[in-house]
Amino acid sequence: MIQKLIENIKKTNAPIVVGLDPMMNFVPEQLVKAAFAEFGETLEGAAEAIWQFNKAIVDETYDLIPAVKPQIAMYEQFGIPGLQAFKKTVDYCKEKGLVVIGDVKRGDIGSTSAAYAAAHLGKVQVGSQFLTPFGEDFATVNPYLGTDGIKPFIEVCQKEKKGLFILVKTSNPSSGEFQDRMVDGRPLYELVGEKVAEWADSCMGDDYSYVGAVVGATYPEMGKVLRKVMPKSFILVPGYGAQGGKAADLVHYFNEDGLGAIVNSSRGIIAAYRQEKYAKFGAENFAQASRQAVVDMIEDIGSALENR
Amino acid sequence: MIQKLIENIKKTNAPIVVGLDPMMNFVPEQLVKAAFAEFGETLEGAAEAIWQFNKAIVDETYDLIPAVKPQIAMYEQFGIPGLQAFKKTVDYCKEKGLVVIGDVKRGDIGSTSAAYAAAHLGKVQVGSQFLTPFGEDFATVNPYLGTDGIKPFIEVCQKEKKGLFILVKTSNPSSGEFQDRMVDGRPLYELVGEKVAEWADSCMGDDYSYVGAVVGATYPEMGKVLRKVMPKSFILVPGYGAQGGKAADLVHYFNEDGLGAIVNSSRGIIAAYRQEKYAKFGAENFAQASRQAVVDMIEDIGSALENR
Repeated sequence: MIQKLIENIKKTNAPIVVGLDPMMNFVPEQLVKAAFAEFGETLEGAAEAIWQFNKAIVDETYDLIPAVKPQIAMYEQFGIPGLQAFKKTVDYCKEKGLVVIGDVKRGDIGSTSAAYAAAHLGKVQVGSQFLTPFGEDFATVNPYLGTDGIKPFIEVCQKEKKGLFILVKTSNPSSGEFQDRMVDGRPLYELVGEKVAEWADSCMGDDYSYVGAVVGATYPEMGKVLRKVMPKSFILVPGYGAQGGKAADLVHYFNEDGLGAIVNSSRGIIAAYRQEKYAKFGAENFAQASRQAVVDMIEDIGSALENR
Repeated sequence: MIQKLIENIKKTNAPIVVGLDPMMNFVPEQLVKAAFAEFGETLEGAAEAIWQFNKAIVDETYDLIPAVKPQIAMYEQFGIPGLQAFKKTVDYCKEKGLVVIGDVKRGDIGSTSAAYAAAHLGKVQVGSQFLTPFGEDFATVNPYLGTDGIKPFIEVCQKEKKGLFILVKTSNPSSGEFQDRMVDGRPLYELVGEKVAEWADSCMGDDYSYVGAVVGATYPEMGKVLRKVMPKSFILVPGYGAQGGKAADLVHYFNEDGLGAIVNSSRGIIAAYRQEKYAKFGAENFAQASRQAVVDMIEDIGSALENR
C-alpha cells in the first residue's frame, strides 16, 4: 500500500491528505435539513448528514489528491450509525482510487492489538470465511505500550500489504509533557522515532517502509531531526493550516527525492467555505470551496518545496 | 459513578471486574452453531455468538460482581455488527446494575478527544436532541498526548458523573520500553502517575476521584510505588491470572480502607470451562464454570487482603 500511496502522490504531484473529520457544525444547513427530514434528529440523521457532506467533498477533490484521512472519533460520536457512515466513507474513497488512512490511534497488547489490526487493516475469520470489518489502507497507532502493541499490527500489514503511521511527536501544545522528556540525553520522541526506524526496517516496500510516523507540523525543528532518525519512513504531518503549521516549515519533513512526507489538512479543506477567503463560494457550493482550498494547499506546499 | 463503583464493591465484597473480551474460540460450539444457523458465517453471525456468550455469563455472575470491562477491540474486529454487540452488552450490563468500564484505550487531542469522550461517556448533540452513542460508565484512556488529550475526557466526566482509568504502567512484557525509561531520576510511568494524581484532584467523589489509573498486576513493586503516588485514584489492575499476576502481589494496590483497586480477569473467568480445573462443568455449562471461577477469584483476593 505504500507503493500505491507513492504512485498516487506522483500522479497528483500533491503530497497532501484531506482529513475527513466532519463536525456537525461544518455541515451546511441544506444537507442537515435534508438528513433530518429523512431520519429525524437522530444518530441516523447525523450520520446521513456527515456522509453526504463527505461524499460531496470527495466527488469534487478526488482527482487532485492521493489520500484521505477520516478521523474515526468524529464518526464514533454518532454511535453505530456514525460508524456506518465511516465504513461507507472508507469504501467510497477506495472506489475512487484514494488511499485511506484510518486515523484511529488504536493501541493495546497481544491478541487485543491483533483484533484492532484485523478490524482496521485485515480480515477476521468467521467459521470458514475471512471477512473485512472496516478495511482501511493505513491506520494510526499509539506506541505507549511498546513492541507488544505494535507487532500484531505489523504482522497484519505484512500479510495484507497495508501500512501504519505510529505517533511519534504529536502536533498539540501539551505534546511535550511526556514526549519531550529527556531520556539518556535525548527526548522520548526521538527514542520512539528510533524504535519506529527499527520496526520500519522489517517492512520495506521498494524505497520506503510500510511503517511510517506521525510528526506534527507545529514542531518543525523536531521534524528535521526525526526525518534523519527515520529515513525510510513516510511522515504523516498533521497541524498544517488551522493549527498553525506553515509550508516553509515543512520542507525538512521531506527527503531529497521530494517524497517521505504527506501533509494533512482537515478543517482547512472541508470547512473552507466558512473562511473569508472562500466565502464567495457560499454554503451551497461548499464542495467547490474545498476544491479551491486543495488547489491552494498543493500550490503552497509545492512552491515551498521548490524554493528549499 | 465512582460512588456507584464503591457501593457495588462494598455490596459484593468483591474488588474485581470481569473482562468481557469474547474471542470466537472461547465461544462454545452450541452457541456458534445456533448463531451461524440464523445468520450464516457472517459478521452478524459472529456478533450474535459473542452476544449470546456474554449474556449467559452476565446472567450467571452479575449478583457476585460489581463491574464488567468489555474490551472494544474484540467487538470492533467484527465491524458494525460487532459494535452492535458491544452496545447491547453495555446496555444489558447496566440494566443488571453493573458498572461498565469500556476498555477503549482512546486518546487524541482537543475536539477529537471530546468526540471520543462523547461517544463513550457522554451525549452528542444532534439538532435539539442530546443522544447517547455508547454510554459506558468509565473509559480507559491513553496519556501519550498529554493534558490536551485528557482534559476533554475530564470535562465530560464532570458533567456526566462518569470516570476514567488512564494507562500508567501496562501489564505486558514490553511495557517498559518507553514507560520505564528514566526521566529526571524517576521512571516515565511515575511521571505519568503524578499527572494522574494532579488530574484526579480536580475530580473528587467523596473519598476517591473519578480519575483512576491502569497499573498491571505483573509489576507489583511498581504498583506499590504508584499506590502512594496516586492516593485518591482507583487502580484498575489487569494481568491477574492468565498473564501471571498473583493475589498476594496485589495487596499493595489497595489502600488501608480495603478500597482503591479493582482487579480484572478476562479469559480466566469467561473461558473458565476450558481450564482443567473447571472441565467438569463441560462446554454446555460454560456460564456456571464462569460463576465458579468468579467465586474462586473473590476468595483468592479476599484471603490475600485478610492476610496482608
